[in-house]
Amino acid sequence: MMSRRIPVAVLGATGSVGQRFVQLLDDHPWFELAVLAGSEQRVGKTYAETCHWTLPLPMPEKAARMTIVESEPEFVDVPLVFSALPSSIAKEREPLFAKAGIAVCTNAGAFRQELDVPILLPEVNPGHAGLIPVQRKNRGWSGLIATNPNCTSTGATIALRALLDSFGVQRVLMVSMQALSGAGYPGVPSMDIIDNVIPFISNEESKVQWEPRKMLGTLAGDHIELADIAISAHCNRVSVSDGHLVCVSAELGQSADPAEVAQALSNFQAPEEARKLPSCPSPVIKVTNRDDRPQPRLDRMTGNGMTTVVGRLREDPILQIKFIVLSHNTIRGAAGGSIFNAELLHSQGMIT
Amino acid sequence: MMSRRIPVAVLGATGSVGQRFVQLLDDHPWFELAVLAGSEQRVGKTYAETCHWTLPLPMPEKAARMTIVESEPEFVDVPLVFSALPSSIAKEREPLFAKAGIAVCTNAGAFRQELDVPILLPEVNPGHAGLIPVQRKNRGWSGLIATNPNCTSTGATIALRALLDSFGVQRVLMVSMQALSGAGYPGVPSMDIIDNVIPFISNEESKVQWEPRKMLGTLAGDHIELADIAISAHCNRVSVSDGHLVCVSAELGQSADPAEVAQALSNFQAPEEARKLPSCPSPVIKVTNRDDRPQPRLDRMTGNGMTTVVGRLREDPILQIKFIVLSHNTIRGAAGGSIFNAELLHSQGMIT
Amino acid sequence: MMSRRIPVAVLGATGSVGQRFVQLLDDHPWFELAVLAGSEQRVGKTYAETCHWTLPLPMPEKAARMTIVESEPEFVDVPLVFSALPSSIAKEREPLFAKAGIAVCTNAGAFRQELDVPILLPEVNPGHAGLIPVQRKNRGWSGLIATNPNCTSTGATIALRALLDSFGVQRVLMVSMQALSGAGYPGVPSMDIIDNVIPFISNEESKVQWEPRKMLGTLAGDHIELADIAISAHCNRVSVSDGHLVCVSAELGQSADPAEVAQALSNFQAPEEARKLPSCPSPVIKVTNRDDRPQPRLDRMTGNGMTTVVGRLREDPILQIKFIVLSHNTIRGAAGGSIFNAELLHSQGMIT
Amino acid sequence: MMSRRIPVAVLGATGSVGQRFVQLLDDHPWFELAVLAGSEQRVGKTYAETCHWTLPLPMPEKAARMTIVESEPEFVDVPLVFSALPSSIAKEREPLFAKAGIAVCTNAGAFRQELDVPILLPEVNPGHAGLIPVQRKNRGWSGLIATNPNCTSTGATIALRALLDSFGVQRVLMVSMQALSGAGYPGVPSMDIIDNVIPFISNEESKVQWEPRKMLGTLAGDHIELADIAISAHCNRVSVSDGHLVCVSAELGQSADPAEVAQALSNFQAPEEARKLPSCPSPVIKVTNRDDRPQPRLDRMTGNGMTTVVGRLREDPILQIKFIVLSHNTIRGAAGGSIFNAELLHSQGMIT
Repeated sequence: MMSRRIPVAVLGATGSVGQRFVQLLDDHPWFELAVLAGSEQRVGKTYAETCHWTLPLPMPEKAARMTIVESEPEFVDVPLVFSALPSSIAKEREPLFAKAGIAVCTNAGAFRQELDVPILLPEVNPGHAGLIPVQRKNRGWSGLIATNPNCTSTGATIALRALLDSFGVQRVLMVSMQALSGAGYPGVPSMDIIDNVIPFISNEESKVQWEPRKMLGTLAGDHIELADIAISAHCNRVSVSDGHLVCVSAELGQSADPAEVAQALSNFQAPEEARKLPSCPSPVIKVTNRDDRPQPRLDRMTGNGMTTVVGRLREDPILQIKFIVLSHNTIRGAAGGSIFNAELLHSQGMIT
Repeated sequence: MMSRRIPVAVLGATGSVGQRFVQLLDDHPWFELAVLAGSEQRVGKTYAETCHWTLPLPMPEKAARMTIVESEPEFVDVPLVFSALPSSIAKEREPLFAKAGIAVCTNAGAFRQELDVPILLPEVNPGHAGLIPVQRKNRGWSGLIATNPNCTSTGATIALRALLDSFGVQRVLMVSMQALSGAGYPGVPSMDIIDNVIPFISNEESKVQWEPRKMLGTLAGDHIELADIAISAHCNRVSVSDGHLVCVSAELGQSADPAEVAQALSNFQAPEEARKLPSCPSPVIKVTNRDDRPQPRLDRMTGNGMTTVVGRLREDPILQIKFIVLSHNTIRGAAGGSIFNAELLHSQGMIT
Repeated sequence: MMSRRIPVAVLGATGSVGQRFVQLLDDHPWFELAVLAGSEQRVGKTYAETCHWTLPLPMPEKAARMTIVESEPEFVDVPLVFSALPSSIAKEREPLFAKAGIAVCTNAGAFRQELDVPILLPEVNPGHAGLIPVQRKNRGWSGLIATNPNCTSTGATIALRALLDSFGVQRVLMVSMQALSGAGYPGVPSMDIIDNVIPFISNEESKVQWEPRKMLGTLAGDHIELADIAISAHCNRVSVSDGHLVCVSAELGQSADPAEVAQALSNFQAPEEARKLPSCPSPVIKVTNRDDRPQPRLDRMTGNGMTTVVGRLREDPILQIKFIVLSHNTIRGAAGGSIFNAELLHSQGMIT
Repeated sequence: MMSRRIPVAVLGATGSVGQRFVQLLDDHPWFELAVLAGSEQRVGKTYAETCHWTLPLPMPEKAARMTIVESEPEFVDVPLVFSALPSSIAKEREPLFAKAGIAVCTNAGAFRQELDVPILLPEVNPGHAGLIPVQRKNRGWSGLIATNPNCTSTGATIALRALLDSFGVQRVLMVSMQALSGAGYPGVPSMDIIDNVIPFISNEESKVQWEPRKMLGTLAGDHIELADIAISAHCNRVSVSDGHLVCVSAELGQSADPAEVAQALSNFQAPEEARKLPSCPSPVIKVTNRDDRPQPRLDRMTGNGMTTVVGRLREDPILQIKFIVLSHNTIRGAAGGSIFNAELLHSQGMIT
């Protein structure tokens, strides 16, 4: 019933990820979009007036009529907010909400390195939500902050979880070809990417080299012990609207041929507690056996953009195994991931 | 003087690489374009009539007026032909020319794996031309076949030569983002690449994993001993017209920090005998220190498309060093490379 | 009920438009995909094996398992076939089906100029189906051939119908910017369209200058009297996957300001007999008042790709009014249009 | 001799058009780049440090070492400045230079509508420089402001000049497909143009409908009488880096078939006084007879980017004649045009 859904807000609602939140929350079974917050100059305008909507779907009608409010807890009186704020603003603003008793599920990177803030992927590490009580105690919050990983880390970490469970993982080299939407809006100038590749994304490689280690690590009381995996990343921007592709070469903990690795990936299931959540993709990982797939344009919407697609499993002459991972960066890797996290935390009784 | 230049032919003159040969030979100091050969249905037509010219430069006027002849030695009576034939046709046709006493400098891959056929990069392995006498003896040819490497191997091998000389090289992982022109014409359908990346190029990875080992190997009498380097490649097609970008992670033979590696690359010079040739780029390798370079659109024409551009030198957490290499695939990696090879062989007295 | 749906076939099922037919028929309320026909070398293979599927949606599972048959009436024993054949093949093949008592709803242009073959848009000229009895009598067919217009004519003709009804139309100048999918597959080589526009599409302008006149004409017994409208077209290919955009300048039959024209377009409704059909878009025409819309990427899926989107209504200093029309070329302008036509003919009792 | 060249400055030197000025002035026979001016936060930095160079050519070495100064006459002590300032800033700043005795050749649109400021194309209306003495008298300036037209007007106006001279011109409908570089940098966000066309460019259509009338008009004492031509324009942004394509339909003053029109365009010559200037293209107009040309990627650099390329001459069923015009928007349509204007004014003794 409508009246029993949890009212939620989106912070940074007019940006690229904010728009995805609005779209994905339009018809959510548990959450009801109740508040849209934006920057000062947009406050008081309707979403339709102030938002330069860039999704190839119509703006949801209900959202279109909503009026933008300030990103302050007093104007956003709901138990759960989704944050699409830029990291620098998130750093200051998100704690105000957590302190005010509001759960913040955020796509911003500002708190990912904090010892008491989990980076969550429900398919991978639902137990890391165990940091929330630590966080509340440490900071005196009745709310919480939970983050999802960087969009490039997302798909790769899901695939690595399956490999780690089956074979162990020791070393991983990743080269990304990342979509334009990952840079937000206005983001990458068209003159920089037409007939071009930009072999650099500021601060991205360090995130991709570290975040998977936290997510694949072990909750040890009040902190996460990082997984003992060495990761190297090259990050590139390519002329694709949505969908990050990552070439992965990995050394596993034991011998395994490509067919066995494919099997392990295909068989991978989300942990029991994640599997029943509305946003849990089925399958979590789709393994394609077509030579030239996955491809961003053709495969990014697999499982409504929540499934991780893996292909081209083959031996690596240096490490051990190589393959391609595709993940939709603004759905699984951003807004959809945050919503999935909120579902997890709600099912665990941490958002009520 | 015009009259003393060596008359040359281009086989497969109407294709993508053939057009580059025609353009680059338009004003060559040593070679004079004398014959254009094409497939049967084009024979008898002028180049202007039959060629769907796709270079962003006007078709050279002299070539425009030339009439296409058959790709048979009797119609191509010159001491040197450049071959832009598809490999399957090259396999049959190129030996006919070599047998007829004609030097064939080819971009086709058909003979690259033959023990007595060199894959030449004058900056890297001019001494491998020493296989030509072996080849002539083995096959009873008075002509010759000399190949240039696959376009993706080209830039990476030039960079590896510099590293090998200074530090040794043990293991190399390469991930390419390759230009559309590398697939020829009509090549990649536009519907396959718009808003997309294709993470697969047929037979490319095996070439990139093997050819550098031959070029960096040692001439031992009648064959090349492959360099003892392990290489792994992922090859991808991106929406770029010209210019292959390769992300490289390498383990060297000794410790070296990024600054030392940059220095070694910058200092690299072509061997004496290559340095004086008309097509020798200066510098052979340009190291850029801008964070976000090299980029295909902005940097591919460095050194008239013959210079290899390297950037983003940094430590690799798994192997040792990582960087980006850019090389113009239809100039340095194809037609320009073959012409440079012909200059080398001519200076060595093998083409007269 | 499933069992009562009309079994249908797709001819040319593996091509670009053929794939759209397969996708759109996957869940059609009246028609059930029963047969897929393809070219000789594909016969006997499953659709999944032989089709290079290029839609950004998964191949329907039922179709994937179907086996390709020959495009001959004896192998295609259904009352209705949808044809995505190339025109040259359609010319010979479609009459064989019509003669065999099968209704052919075709996207091919082969018969559009025949006096007794209608070009149908159910929103525009459902009454032109009155040519079918003439056609049957003339040709001794128990089946029929009905065509949909060229994809570029489609959206413009729908808009012109609304204008003609309200104000009359005298002269129309159209400049198209057409999507790549309109050229089929492999279609436009990527090297021809990257960083480029191709200001030419073979035979397109003559179609766009003539077909709307037939569709907007009057059924006069056994033929259509062409509408007395002068049309000029410039046709261009741009780097867009789907969605044809047409800039239109028009001289109407009476004075009307942009607001009145917008009103007439917004108010336009499909004729009663078309309105109840499953594929009838609602609205038929959507008028957007945003300055910079419609845009192909953002608006092509309006009304599941069946709605015609019009924007930028303003005065034209030479003719009278100018505006932009967007129509999805492989849905409304091709497969979806043919299916809509079949629905119309079925509701009129001509397909049973 | 170097020492006798006129020292010149570029205002707004780091922007998209500013970079073109710097590149084109690198080796100019009459002008020597002496000063680069930029916005406040760049002052004191070298051009290499502060400029995000986006041309696919290396930054000229001399410019790279120059230090940015403020855009104030006291810091820019040269007889001639080229302005690539945004219009809003040009409005205030350019008169300060003109007052200080400096000739300003500007690409900005700020003064184009002023009665005493000429919009110059040396091939079209060199005599309009006759407004300069009027301007000096009106405004008490010892310097001057001369503008070049909007980049989209440029090519079309050159073609119309040839038609006007030969046949007269009455009505012209133009639909542009404009390059991304025309929007400056950062300009069009990549997410707005990937797989898309934007059928709107702010304030562009009114310029294209008016500027050609001024340039094709007649100097009548102290003002220009606008040419009596009705023009309608639709302006679109497409995914092309450089080169504006315009589809033109025109009604001439007398009957002329496509061949006659082609002849008139081919025969068109710049007036005597423009012909001898260094930047005068030869030919001024190139008429191509290939069906599918001109194309931006292949033809924009014709005549070093200064030639106007026209193709697809054919009858127009509504007006009279139709064709395509291509002009390089940042060379002929911006920086190259301003430089050409300065050459004209110098040859006329107005810049010394």
